[in-house]
Amino acid sequence: MSSNPSVDFLQACLEHNFWTWSAQSKVNPIPVTKAKGVYFWDVDGKRYLDLNSMVMCVNIGHGDERVVEAIVEQARQLPFAGPQMATQARGELCKKLTEIVPPGLSKFLFTLGGADANENAIKLARGYTGRFKILTRYRSYHGATYGAISLTGDPRRVAWEPTTMPGVVHFLDPYRYRSTFHRLNPDITEDEFCRDYLNHLEEIIQYERPETIAAILIETVTGTNGIIVPPDGYLQGVREICDRYGIVMICDEVMSGFGRTGEWFAVDHWKVVPDIMTMAKGLTSAYAPLGAVAMKPEIANAFNNKVYEGGLTFNGHPISLAAAIATIRVMQEDHLVERAKQMGQVMADMLAELAQRHPSIGEVRSIGLFGAIELVKNRKSKIPMAPFNQNSPEMIALRKYLLDQGVFLYTHWHTVLLVPPLIITEEQLAEGFEVIDRALIITDAAVEK
Amino acid sequence: MSSNPSVDFLQACLEHNFWTWSAQSKVNPIPVTKAKGVYFWDVDGKRYLDLNSMVMCVNIGHGDERVVEAIVEQARQLPFAGPQMATQARGELCKKLTEIVPPGLSKFLFTLGGADANENAIKLARGYTGRFKILTRYRSYHGATYGAISLTGDPRRVAWEPTTMPGVVHFLDPYRYRSTFHRLNPDITEDEFCRDYLNHLEEIIQYERPETIAAILIETVTGTNGIIVPPDGYLQGVREICDRYGIVMICDEVMSGFGRTGEWFAVDHWKVVPDIMTMAKGLTSAYAPLGAVAMKPEIANAFNNKVYEGGLTFNGHPISLAAAIATIRVMQEDHLVERAKQMGQVMADMLAELAQRHPSIGEVRSIGLFGAIELVKNRKSKIPMAPFNQNSPEMIALRKYLLDQGVFLYTHWHTVLLVPPLIITEEQLAEGFEVIDRALIITDAAVEK
Ligand SMILES: Cc1ncc(COP(=O)(O)O)c(C=O)c1O
Ligand SMILES: Cc1ncc(COP(=O)(O)O)c(C=O)c1O
Repeated sequence: MSSNPSVDFLQACLEHNFWTWSAQSKVNPIPVTKAKGVYFWDVDGKRYLDLNSMVMCVNIGHGDERVVEAIVEQARQLPFAGPQMATQARGELCKKLTEIVPPGLSKFLFTLGGADANENAIKLARGYTGRFKILTRYRSYHGATYGAISLTGDPRRVAWEPTTMPGVVHFLDPYRYRSTFHRLNPDITEDEFCRDYLNHLEEIIQYERPETIAAILIETVTGTNGIIVPPDGYLQGVREICDRYGIVMICDEVMSGFGRTGEWFAVDHWKVVPDIMTMAKGLTSAYAPLGAVAMKPEIANAFNNKVYEGGLTFNGHPISLAAAIATIRVMQEDHLVERAKQMGQVMADMLAELAQRHPSIGEVRSIGLFGAIELVKNRKSKIPMAPFNQNSPEMIALRKYLLDQGVFLYTHWHTVLLVPPLIITEEQLAEGFEVIDRALIITDAAVEK
Repeated sequence: MSSNPSVDFLQACLEHNFWTWSAQSKVNPIPVTKAKGVYFWDVDGKRYLDLNSMVMCVNIGHGDERVVEAIVEQARQLPFAGPQMATQARGELCKKLTEIVPPGLSKFLFTLGGADANENAIKLARGYTGRFKILTRYRSYHGATYGAISLTGDPRRVAWEPTTMPGVVHFLDPYRYRSTFHRLNPDITEDEFCRDYLNHLEEIIQYERPETIAAILIETVTGTNGIIVPPDGYLQGVREICDRYGIVMICDEVMSGFGRTGEWFAVDHWKVVPDIMTMAKGLTSAYAPLGAVAMKPEIANAFNNKVYEGGLTFNGHPISLAAAIATIRVMQEDHLVERAKQMGQVMADMLAELAQRHPSIGEVRSIGLFGAIELVKNRKSKIPMAPFNQNSPEMIALRKYLLDQGVFLYTHWHTVLLVPPLIITEEQLAEGFEVIDRALIITDAAVEK
């Protein structure tokens, strides 16, 4: 990777680091030394345009000094206090969050990241309702601790079986482009499509018996598994179903939160207030590890007299809290949510234009700066450019070309995700799309004649 | 708690924070504003002597500028890079760890804390062996994510049932003071006592069938549940059993590691090298959230060609890695491991002296600066000062007295734990013991006449 012999850190990493989500002998990590704005650099000075915000998390962009200096200040003032202590940073972040979360979510449990935020969310729901089962969707990813991976619908869960947590039932996402049941009537109206998938949820609830279901947990906009934007009315419908059966509605905004979709949280597009909302990633823009569970007071009150049995040593770490406060402030000062909305329109136009020119594009989707390109071998039959849960030579070649050209983004099976920092400019987006445009020649060549 | 009206952060915390391991209406958090050395201060300027290293984690003491400035430097240089990237900090910490972990542990998976370190440890063991079951002990605590709490033996686990992870079997700890089977022969030699508990483990293994057991996971020295120091030969015996049956030996050094017991890791007392060792807490002295799994290369190699299916967004966060590097350096520069050994002897003497003077002390135990006082109503019948897994008026009064007098420590049921920062001086220890000495009048009064 590096031709610079003075650099031994890459060597040390390759020798001693165990890589997550990887086959150890096949890793090829980028040796990063610097990151600023929408770019990062490797040890040889090669610059990468970061269209994945690292791990869909550096929403405000890299190296923002306001957040860095907030960390510095907190580290010098009080680097640590236990999770049972009240600190300035804890109180301040609580208040800051109430400014931006949907109205009515007023209690916050701080975690280390997204996975444990979701684990706490279902624990709260189970404790609140006294019920056992959790419904989640097949295309969801909710994290990779044992509880969170059990909640996850996508195939990453299957590798953890049979030791997954009992009590999770998966249902179908309103994924229009590949909806099994709308093969023969693709022109169904958005309303009717939405109704079908709400009816499906209702059907599963009846089979499972509503009185056994503690919570429905969904990614408001499904992220990794395809930027699946729910049809208008879907989220309101889920809210209504939850109300009807006394089921706790949990929205996972770990990836879709903090301006990503052009609103503070994706639920804001539909003005739906879940009972519990989980966050991480954008919460600190990854400047420090932090997750959070926001909840309505009645959920919290269920634990007024009975002990909430859960918590980790580093929950509510002051440095992480300080990073979150500063991150939110940056987003407010620089109007990054509005900006994501505007640039989201720009990106949507670029995506549409790309789709017109490349036969290997089956569909493009986006909401705010949260986009996906779905690559197919055949637009009519929609055969994906890589089989479900697999790679393909074309997708590997595409990824390699992009990386060689200094464009860092995430491909998932046959999809290309676009999740840039919210500060990206039109020129920078165009810079990325120009490379993607060239890269798609690779997949276009694989389109069935 | 605070009489200072200008302080609204405590108010904000009480209004908006959801407290872990707590009944929400009964919390009384200390509003911490400053921490230095072995002390921290609340908003009214009240000073607390920290005999619990906050959450048994601030091993090097509070506010060490060398670690703070390492965080500052990392934050300014590269606050974040994804878990799939190689960074200077990642490479450097890997190398630093190889200097201090038992020989042969040469691969490191970085996590967010102790719970997910243990979850990854068993995932590695299951993947390596192709086996399913994990044996852990009843008095263990391994963390509070779904997998980690399932591994946990102590009653905190029971609150999570029936949704705990399948495949965990609990066995008995070599807890001499309360050993059920040695009631009538308390004078059994250490060797024979040790043999009984190794035979017990062997018996359970036979019942469960060795070829189904992936790993035995133990706290090298049981922490929260009583500072249970294994008899000489026990750890070697477990090692031998694991070798015999091809079972992965995992030692949880989250609490006992990083000088706590007067060695870098508790396993070093017996020169035993586990196949996998987990750490957190002292790894960064809590200056930033971090955990790690150290493993033998053969464990890692099992994932050379098959993907290791696990990982979190913030794994290997640069700021946390930098905090760990600096923490280890501080421990080396200041010879804190040796110091813990020396001061451990001082503390052991103080404990012994205390035990002589207070009839409510059933037993004192310690190894390094890791100590416990076991309080009883009757030395002969060993009736504990609070029932198992419960509180008692005496223990509540004791705790209140200590806190009022500015001594912060952890009491667990009928035990008092002593887990001070390793930098504590003899005078500071004496200062704490003087208050404990007075406090024990409360429990002495409850001793059966
Ligand atoms: C929607 C969603 N939920 C939860 C998680 C888990 O977050 P973390 O990796 O911080 O545990 C992710 C991570 O990608 C996510 O995308
Ligand atoms: C022995 C042991 N293992 C694991 C853990 C869990 O660590 P964390 O709270 O960082 O998840 C703890 C925490 O107290 C512990 O004492």
